[in-house]
Amino acid sequence: MKKDIDQLLESRNLDGLLIVGPGQHNPAMYYFTGGGHLTSAILVKKRGSEPLLVHYSMERDEAAKTGLPTRDMADYSYDDYLKQANGDYLQAIARVHRQIFSDVGIDSGRVGVYGKQDAGITQAIFTALQSLMPDLTLVGEYNDTVLLQAMSTKDTEEIERIRAMGLATTAVVGQVADFLTSHRVKDGILIKPDGTPLTIGEVKRRIDLWLVERGVENPEGTIFAIGRDAGIPHSTGNPSDYLSLGKTIVFDIYPCETGGGYFYDLTRTWCLGYAPDDALSLYEDVLAVYQDSMRELEVDALCKDFQKRACDLFEGRGHPTIQSNPQTQVGYVHSLGHGVGLNIHEKPSFNKYALESDRLTPGVVITVEPGLYYPERGLGVRLEDTVCVGHDGQIGVLAEFPLDLVLPMKEG
Amino acid sequence: MKKDIDQLLESRNLDGLLIVGPGQHNPAMYYFTGGGHLTSAILVKKRGSEPLLVHYSMERDEAAKTGLPTRDMADYSYDDYLKQANGDYLQAIARVHRQIFSDVGIDSGRVGVYGKQDAGITQAIFTALQSLMPDLTLVGEYNDTVLLQAMSTKDTEEIERIRAMGLATTAVVGQVADFLTSHRVKDGILIKPDGTPLTIGEVKRRIDLWLVERGVENPEGTIFAIGRDAGIPHSTGNPSDYLSLGKTIVFDIYPCETGGGYFYDLTRTWCLGYAPDDALSLYEDVLAVYQDSMRELEVDALCKDFQKRACDLFEGRGHPTIQSNPQTQVGYVHSLGHGVGLNIHEKPSFNKYALESDRLTPGVVITVEPGLYYPERGLGVRLEDTVCVGHDGQIGVLAEFPLDLVLPMKEG
Repeated sequence: MKKDIDQLLESRNLDGLLIVGPGQHNPAMYYFTGGGHLTSAILVKKRGSEPLLVHYSMERDEAAKTGLPTRDMADYSYDDYLKQANGDYLQAIARVHRQIFSDVGIDSGRVGVYGKQDAGITQAIFTALQSLMPDLTLVGEYNDTVLLQAMSTKDTEEIERIRAMGLATTAVVGQVADFLTSHRVKDGILIKPDGTPLTIGEVKRRIDLWLVERGVENPEGTIFAIGRDAGIPHSTGNPSDYLSLGKTIVFDIYPCETGGGYFYDLTRTWCLGYAPDDALSLYEDVLAVYQDSMRELEVDALCKDFQKRACDLFEGRGHPTIQSNPQTQVGYVHSLGHGVGLNIHEKPSFNKYALESDRLTPGVVITVEPGLYYPERGLGVRLEDTVCVGHDGQIGVLAEFPLDLVLPMKEG
Repeated sequence: MKKDIDQLLESRNLDGLLIVGPGQHNPAMYYFTGGGHLTSAILVKKRGSEPLLVHYSMERDEAAKTGLPTRDMADYSYDDYLKQANGDYLQAIARVHRQIFSDVGIDSGRVGVYGKQDAGITQAIFTALQSLMPDLTLVGEYNDTVLLQAMSTKDTEEIERIRAMGLATTAVVGQVADFLTSHRVKDGILIKPDGTPLTIGEVKRRIDLWLVERGVENPEGTIFAIGRDAGIPHSTGNPSDYLSLGKTIVFDIYPCETGGGYFYDLTRTWCLGYAPDDALSLYEDVLAVYQDSMRELEVDALCKDFQKRACDLFEGRGHPTIQSNPQTQVGYVHSLGHGVGLNIHEKPSFNKYALESDRLTPGVVITVEPGLYYPERGLGVRLEDTVCVGHDGQIGVLAEFPLDLVLPMKEG
């Protein structure tokens, strides 16, 4: 949680942190600011002190709304630095950074760096800044960063915000189910009132609309993939495809709060009208692993143990997995879950590279999402829910929705 | 334009480029891939050769849709590198990068780096990679990058896509005007059919909805700010504010194609019912500069000359400007415009730091957006249109919308 940051910094021998980039859709910045229309800002925090948010003049009100101590970029007299640097813009902005560090009392030591920004700008400014401040080391943490570690456990307010996103998400998933089953069927495909076939593109447009109606945003799009496409985990689906009966549809939806806040993540697999035997059999295998995983989740347990367990179960049911063959593209090909928060994928991790710190610590919000994929057989099944490990030790899905495979259609 | 990239690389003594980050909402990656659900990808291009897109296995279909040569990350046997690196994840991923560079024939030289990615990951991987490949320099360009220079001029297809975004934008602005004027007025504020006051938050919800109905996305939100808030250029407006007659409303809307494509940018200033004299006078000054700028735009002209001209005109009308006082927070406080494309703000630049290359070259798409701001007087006015300098030399607004200040209201 955010309150752990100073301790985490200390444990990694970091004297402070620097966060760069915009105020929206930038998890590191959002974590401290709560969002806001900041085109580009600089947040610096010395370990043990409050952060300072440096913003552009035109955005002084947006910066003030964050409640953080702020300072206007205009106070740093960029033009003077530019003169000192003989008109070199990069040197001038590096000097502004040095001044900001100095203002919060950082002149040397190790500072962790975070925030979404163009890699070229990062490389340019950090290289220039390192030359200006040889006693300071800008530390790029990889994988298991202080911020991701802090973010991995949520406080009660964060959990409630993710649950609210879950309620919006399940409401929309229900609307999509109702919408699909309200259609007529002709020659095995869904037909609109005007007599033409419904397409995946039209379904996705409705999803976007219904999400916005609930005041949430869908920046990453939706996976709504049928048949062969359902057999490739991240195929988003072909907009011109028709909705055919008896084919698996993988519907994975992961909207966030408007302005780049907390995500929710849910997947259902549907067959319209009926499920052929091979789809049903695959579904039963996935459901069995889903139910087993849910039952076994336990406070403080190691995440990668659940991945191993899921692989063992799938292998026992005759499926290849990335455990038996790391290169496989059929069977069970991904990890059992991931943390969800300001990032759609964050710590804890469930894959084989997961760390000792990737555990079901109270406050963790994760997905559980077993799946099986056979693109050449035109089949894919995934079931995913977002689960909270409560501070009271209770573990459960944040927003329930039926797991049914078949969406019954009316007679054509 | 994209076809200029090899020449631009050569002019800057760069042997290639590296683009990192996701496929969506990542202009550098989108420029080459056209979007797609790529969680994280690596694109490498040697000067004079085609780019290579390295993607995760689960996203092989999304990668294939880009039409680029692709390679599956699974081919790089990360696990072997991890063993070689004694379990050090960062060293392993740096070795994968080295292998990718080697595959496209880059073993040394200077490579420009681009793409939205967490600054810590950038710092970590690039530092590790530089140690592994001492003969290679990862060049962070600042400000005037190869990609921003290429992107600054659009081909005909790009221009038509921005125009289509403009038509969606102006349609929604028209809907907002109709929506506002359809309300009753009571005690100087807009009242909904249920008898309660309309709020800015509700107007913004409608804007998001109407944008999605037209199949476009609004990742950065909307500025809809009234009174004092209108006097601070990037205040987005207070959701609980009522819509009062006779106050300036700055309405700045900047949606993009769904999936992180091309933006459009437009601002109108409205007074509901009537304009008080001070608002009208400010509006007339802004309109005069808008009209003067539009009239003077000329192929190949230097952008910063228009900023100077706008400052001179505003000063002639008695307003402080950032030319007369760089620290001013009242009067004319920003630059006259900016390029628009896959970035909402891109080259060419109009501010005093603009370069010789910031010109109205054919293919450039820019905003023209003079404004005046007096927050303590509760006043702000900005008028903005997106303008294309055509390849035929014609210069004009891409999607027209009336510039009127007053939205007439029906009698209460």
